[in-house]
Amino acid sequence: MNFQLTKDFITLIEWLIDQKKNSELLQKIDNLLAPDIAEILELLDFEKSKYLFSLLGEEMRADILLDVEEDLREMLLEDLSLQEIVKEVIENLDSDDAADVIQELPEKKQQEVLSNIADPQQAINIADLLSYQHNSAGALMAKELIKVQENWSVLRCVSEMRKQAQNINKVYTIYVINKKNKLTGTASLKKLLLTPEKTFISDIYNKQIISVQTSTSAEEVARIMNKYDLIVLPVVNEKNELVGRITIDDVVDLIKEEAGKDYQMASGISDHIEPLDNVLTLTRARIPWLIIGMIGGLLGAQIIGLFEIEKNPFLAFFIPLITAMGGNVGVQSSAIIVQGLAANNLGIDSWYKRFIKEFSVALLNGLICCILLFIFSIILYLQPNISLMLSVSLLTVMVFAALFGTFVPLILNRMKVDPALATGPFITTMSDVIGLFIYFSIAKYLL
Amino acid sequence: MNFQLTKDFITLIEWLIDQKKNSELLQKIDNLLAPDIAEILELLDFEKSKYLFSLLGEEMRADILLDVEEDLREMLLEDLSLQEIVKEVIENLDSDDAADVIQELPEKKQQEVLSNIADPQQAINIADLLSYQHNSAGALMAKELIKVQENWSVLRCVSEMRKQAQNINKVYTIYVINKKNKLTGTASLKKLLLTPEKTFISDIYNKQIISVQTSTSAEEVARIMNKYDLIVLPVVNEKNELVGRITIDDVVDLIKEEAGKDYQMASGISDHIEPLDNVLTLTRARIPWLIIGMIGGLLGAQIIGLFEIEKNPFLAFFIPLITAMGGNVGVQSSAIIVQGLAANNLGIDSWYKRFIKEFSVALLNGLICCILLFIFSIILYLQPNISLMLSVSLLTVMVFAALFGTFVPLILNRMKVDPALATGPFITTMSDVIGLFIYFSIAKYLL
Repeated sequence: MNFQLTKDFITLIEWLIDQKKNSELLQKIDNLLAPDIAEILELLDFEKSKYLFSLLGEEMRADILLDVEEDLREMLLEDLSLQEIVKEVIENLDSDDAADVIQELPEKKQQEVLSNIADPQQAINIADLLSYQHNSAGALMAKELIKVQENWSVLRCVSEMRKQAQNINKVYTIYVINKKNKLTGTASLKKLLLTPEKTFISDIYNKQIISVQTSTSAEEVARIMNKYDLIVLPVVNEKNELVGRITIDDVVDLIKEEAGKDYQMASGISDHIEPLDNVLTLTRARIPWLIIGMIGGLLGAQIIGLFEIEKNPFLAFFIPLITAMGGNVGVQSSAIIVQGLAANNLGIDSWYKRFIKEFSVALLNGLICCILLFIFSIILYLQPNISLMLSVSLLTVMVFAALFGTFVPLILNRMKVDPALATGPFITTMSDVIGLFIYFSIAKYLL
Repeated sequence: MNFQLTKDFITLIEWLIDQKKNSELLQKIDNLLAPDIAEILELLDFEKSKYLFSLLGEEMRADILLDVEEDLREMLLEDLSLQEIVKEVIENLDSDDAADVIQELPEKKQQEVLSNIADPQQAINIADLLSYQHNSAGALMAKELIKVQENWSVLRCVSEMRKQAQNINKVYTIYVINKKNKLTGTASLKKLLLTPEKTFISDIYNKQIISVQTSTSAEEVARIMNKYDLIVLPVVNEKNELVGRITIDDVVDLIKEEAGKDYQMASGISDHIEPLDNVLTLTRARIPWLIIGMIGGLLGAQIIGLFEIEKNPFLAFFIPLITAMGGNVGVQSSAIIVQGLAANNLGIDSWYKRFIKEFSVALLNGLICCILLFIFSIILYLQPNISLMLSVSLLTVMVFAALFGTFVPLILNRMKVDPALATGPFITTMSDVIGLFIYFSIAKYLL
């Protein structure tokens, strides 16, 4: 029932395109939905992709443009005339989706598209959406919504809705406003359907509103919708006038992206990339952190050079142990903080309390590891003074790395810098360098 | 308008609880929603938390139990009598939420609760949900839904809905079934509201259905809902009979958890933990990977011991460089694959094609880094043969780590093991050990 893309299917589609067997092609994809066809287009060569796209109906084309990745969308749009973009794409989309598509056009073409839209209200709506800052609630919202006055009867509501609902694909909630256009509450379609027609809206609507301002950040929107389990969230302007609504499907992508972004940063990948991106894009996203790591490695070499390793060459044996453990502990600590900040569940503890807690965890982990290391190294090398030196160094490095990994992201966050920057290569590189210094200093002192 | 928790507010609540000023307490939290109060309860001592919880109305208590973290939920439930659990909690919840709460009770109490539910249909529904495997669509779904027959008129639908909708909090979609109870399509409330009453459902409903089976995995449910932008998804049994529906809010948490889980694994944290968890929980989640890292470090020491480092002690200088770069590249590669697997967008490339691509990226990154390293090290040490040896080693280690980081998760995935296991400490530890071997072997050969 649900479509599963296979290599054989793609091969068949490619062959049908080569043979220009249009009716068979259309028959093959007849019962597929836009996201399925978008998936197919992504896997074809651009020429084939364009050919298949040109065979489709305009509503399907509009939906597919929303579903394909940015690169392909741009290429497909470039191939359409101004009239095709306006009539076939924009006029078939909700205002938020239309604004997303227009945003990707060159500045000049944006104006041309806007001035060619037949319905002036739609043009105004889209222009309004384009005016909000990227990643704000205003830029995320759609203008299409159903609003009714508090003093209307259910009967009047239903008849007004008949007019308003023409252009709205999905109705989740009906917004109730007062005479000054201020949002006062919500009513569900279910309630409207099950209430006698003469009842007044003011008697049945829900006055507890959760809303956001147009300037609210997309992250905050995602947090609120997730916390209160909302499907749709109204957006108001500074005067508390209802101006739009955000639906959960736009936010799910954002929530996923946010979670994925932190992980990517922690892995030393600077851009949003995917396995299907080309070699140059993949290289560009990975090289900056690698260069930082390399400079860190050279710095580490300088640190080791400060100590006379030729006197105690066996000290070299334990360099990987010390750097790996510092790195692991630092990455763990920073991940906990970054995830806590993202989920907004760090609580309201003071920094002092957090210090005590992180210090305790690090000490406990450190003691377990250093006792084990003492035992292992005694067995392996039979030199108690080396085992002691190793254990003390490991404990010190681990506690240091834990505190470093905890507080660097907290400080960055306080300074309004993305704390995820401090995870991954930055933390591991810094804890390598400092950990080596600690290790050799302790070795010098104890041996 | 939206609630923002502050430390002062918590202090005030604590004081009011100490003074047993119940009416003032209730007034303070009067306009808060269940997720807000759950947040407050999480931050109070358990005794205070219990006290505040006991003051609340039963519907609020039921909702709050769903919103608090597992630990607190268990503790609050332990404090309720069997009658309270049944009458105040379970009977106020939808079947899926009720099943979630019951699942956390001890086996014996589960049976007692089920046999005390007044409405036999609710008891049967919950028992049914409890029978599905954890993390399957069956266990995620709710039984409450509105279904109508294809041959009904809109008028009959609305009157049947009046009966069915009593117990359903939110209606998103109306499911259309045939006489054999098989799912044949969906209709929206909007359509019902805007269509003349005598129209037959069969003339207006949407026959394109996306559905899942009760046995479908939760991950697949999340993927489908996300791909097709669905708010609600019907669940059918093997006979294609409609048995339940899954709403997006349950899946958003799952999507977030999944994304977070991969990041936690990559950071060497084995359990789902949060900054507010206690010291022992935090330590337990972190220690396993640290011990693996430590064993890797000792293995590294053995590898270095194989080579006569005392003859060339300066080789020790570059150990951190080699291990750090191998680790960074391995972590990058494995993150790209794990995220690609999670997002299901690895495409349908063959392993051979993927090998060529990853090899090209690694070679390109490696060449850039090793040319830079050659230049830096010539400037620092003025010894071309050492610079050459370093550059060759770095390139080899980087290419090896990239392939290792790419294919280990792919192989694990093929073997049905969670590929995220291969990210983080495992990859870094393995690439440390093998990287050291490569480095010293090349050094021995070239110097």
